[in-house]
Amino acid sequence: MKVSPLAPDRFPDLPNIRGVRFAAAQAGVKYKDRLDVMLAVAQPGSSVAGVFTTSATRSAPVLDCQSKLAAGASQSAHGATILVNSGNANAFTGHRGEESVRAVCQAVSSTINVPVHRVFTASTGVIGEPLPHEKIVSVIGDLDSALTENNLSDAAHAIMTTDTFAKGSHVDVKIDGTPVKIAGIAKGSGMIAPDMATMLVYIFTDAAVEPALLQDILSDLNKVTFNAITVDSDTSTSDSLMLVATGASGAPELTTRTSSDAMNFVDGLHEVMLDLAHQVVRDGEGATKFVEVRVSGAKTNDEADKVARAIANSPLVKTAIAGEDPNWGRIVMAIGKSGATADRDRITIHFGDVLVAEKGWVAKSYTEDAGARYMKQPNLEIAVDLGIAEGKAKVWTCDLTHGYISINADYRS
Amino acid sequence: MKVSPLAPDRFPDLPNIRGVRFAAAQAGVKYKDRLDVMLAVAQPGSSVAGVFTTSATRSAPVLDCQSKLAAGASQSAHGATILVNSGNANAFTGHRGEESVRAVCQAVSSTINVPVHRVFTASTGVIGEPLPHEKIVSVIGDLDSALTENNLSDAAHAIMTTDTFAKGSHVDVKIDGTPVKIAGIAKGSGMIAPDMATMLVYIFTDAAVEPALLQDILSDLNKVTFNAITVDSDTSTSDSLMLVATGASGAPELTTRTSSDAMNFVDGLHEVMLDLAHQVVRDGEGATKFVEVRVSGAKTNDEADKVARAIANSPLVKTAIAGEDPNWGRIVMAIGKSGATADRDRITIHFGDVLVAEKGWVAKSYTEDAGARYMKQPNLEIAVDLGIAEGKAKVWTCDLTHGYISINADYRS
Repeated sequence: MKVSPLAPDRFPDLPNIRGVRFAAAQAGVKYKDRLDVMLAVAQPGSSVAGVFTTSATRSAPVLDCQSKLAAGASQSAHGATILVNSGNANAFTGHRGEESVRAVCQAVSSTINVPVHRVFTASTGVIGEPLPHEKIVSVIGDLDSALTENNLSDAAHAIMTTDTFAKGSHVDVKIDGTPVKIAGIAKGSGMIAPDMATMLVYIFTDAAVEPALLQDILSDLNKVTFNAITVDSDTSTSDSLMLVATGASGAPELTTRTSSDAMNFVDGLHEVMLDLAHQVVRDGEGATKFVEVRVSGAKTNDEADKVARAIANSPLVKTAIAGEDPNWGRIVMAIGKSGATADRDRITIHFGDVLVAEKGWVAKSYTEDAGARYMKQPNLEIAVDLGIAEGKAKVWTCDLTHGYISINADYRS
Repeated sequence: MKVSPLAPDRFPDLPNIRGVRFAAAQAGVKYKDRLDVMLAVAQPGSSVAGVFTTSATRSAPVLDCQSKLAAGASQSAHGATILVNSGNANAFTGHRGEESVRAVCQAVSSTINVPVHRVFTASTGVIGEPLPHEKIVSVIGDLDSALTENNLSDAAHAIMTTDTFAKGSHVDVKIDGTPVKIAGIAKGSGMIAPDMATMLVYIFTDAAVEPALLQDILSDLNKVTFNAITVDSDTSTSDSLMLVATGASGAPELTTRTSSDAMNFVDGLHEVMLDLAHQVVRDGEGATKFVEVRVSGAKTNDEADKVARAIANSPLVKTAIAGEDPNWGRIVMAIGKSGATADRDRITIHFGDVLVAEKGWVAKSYTEDAGARYMKQPNLEIAVDLGIAEGKAKVWTCDLTHGYISINADYRS
């Protein structure tokens, strides 16, 4: 598979996160001769938080994770494990899907010696086919023997499906003077296609964070990171984002959001989540352009978000970007259809530093040459000011190309 | 330009509609050597109704038509005229756009001798460029001399932009035993792209219909016809649908909806509107498949509509259809993301007569061969039953192909 032209130069050197060990294995769920199962085992007492797809047709593993977290599995004196397989999504597989989840969780629980309610799973790949869970169960012993703190990179590779590059990110922060690490991995490309392009994200930190606070922080940051990216406006049945805090750094536990330590942690986590989210967009199916859409001057933040998404999801805007066409008329169209309050004569549009339109018409200083030159860059910024009030939002997307059609219109083999 | 593979065999022989005359001319607004302006003049006393884009960045002609109808121009002892140009949308052209509309309306009014509030206009084509209204004004005299009842076909051709075929439809109905005709024309292809692919529809009848009733009927039928089609989920700044009833048939005036005569008229109008709407989808940019999406068993009709649109607008569903891939997993994904109430284990999916999925999983009788064979047809039906209540909806769409990308990603010249 051709690597995305927007891929980072290389996979980052992810640090060890004290208190959590990783292993990856080849179970042959669908792919041959490649890692397709990963296991993460966090030390007893670790806090766990999660955010999952809102799809009404969620996969069996998502439903299982949600019910465990709702029942209080976010904290426990026991360890916590995450097992992920690629190659099969175990979605829309009826009650058989639930049996597969139970079988995998049971096997992990007995091998790793963690209670079953602290075993979280995810599956990504083709949907509607029964998960061959016995293949996964058969490698759990090997995974257990291979567990090491220094293996997050293998985990990042084991969860890939149609991804053209593995995704990882990390930061260091300080809590009360103690160094704390945050590192995460992600998979996802055809933002968020049901067969083989789900988004999965796993982030680990050796900070100690009270579980309800961890969940709050994760849910809030999700809105401005993973929920602010869109490749094709489609939503997977399996999207999962989990955050595990082991506390093994020895830094004091965070219990409130207002402390400067907590703010450091939130800032660091935000950086990792945004970086991973951008990597997912950069690996968008067929993407040749990475686009930041900024909207300001809207009636409310929600209305700004509506406008930004209308632009970022518009097939006409996305094909214009693919064609390096500074077609600001399509931006005007997308603003108009968004449903947000807008007044033609107050709209200002910039492509990067190029003022394109203002006061209801093309800007006097604007030339097609300047616009066309700007659009040739791989990283683009489209900024719209509605000139009405203070609402603002940012979303990130990619272009819509022949590559996307080729990847998704090919016969499913 | 290549004609859509889904085009009808030929343009229909549209009948004369007593009481309304048509003319078309070459004004050279943008295109050379082709009809690009049409004029329709309806006899004094004709009723006029209209439905327009909900875009917040509507074009100047749309704003003008809306304000005239709101001020009572739907009925008058005077005539009524519609002038449409292709090649320039007169949208996002600031106050200059409003001046152009005034200039055109004034010229039509004085030449044809109708009050300016009974002159309706529309413009379709590239946006953001000033309308060269003097070119249009200069042909109004010629249009006036050329007016004839037998010219609706030329009008259909004059409003085309990127359309690959002209669109027309007609029916005969009886009101109180008197024969009444309804005939309409439409343009639109990249459902509903801002530059050169707006949808415009003009329908004429020699029935006599009280104006408020005419508007009610038009607005209601619009919901299940033109508002139930989607090519790429984008919305034009210029979409306009107008209906003119001249009363020249001599049939008694319709004043209430409950009479059997009114029901005949509504049924006939529905047929014309649905036929025109389907023609617009069949001319969808790059379309190779015409797809009916039917949803039943939803909690409410609105929820059924949400599910149907989520399926019809999903890039992943549309690319699968382009690839003749019976990828029912993507249908499940679209149901899940629609926001409507759904229960995996109650969903039934059919592709035509092929039962694909039921009870939360692929149907036992389903084979990939049967699915793949079905998808090879140019006309497809996707039926989803949610198994929850009685809500239902239908929408029509086309596939998303390399052709769409080529048409829309090419540099705007």
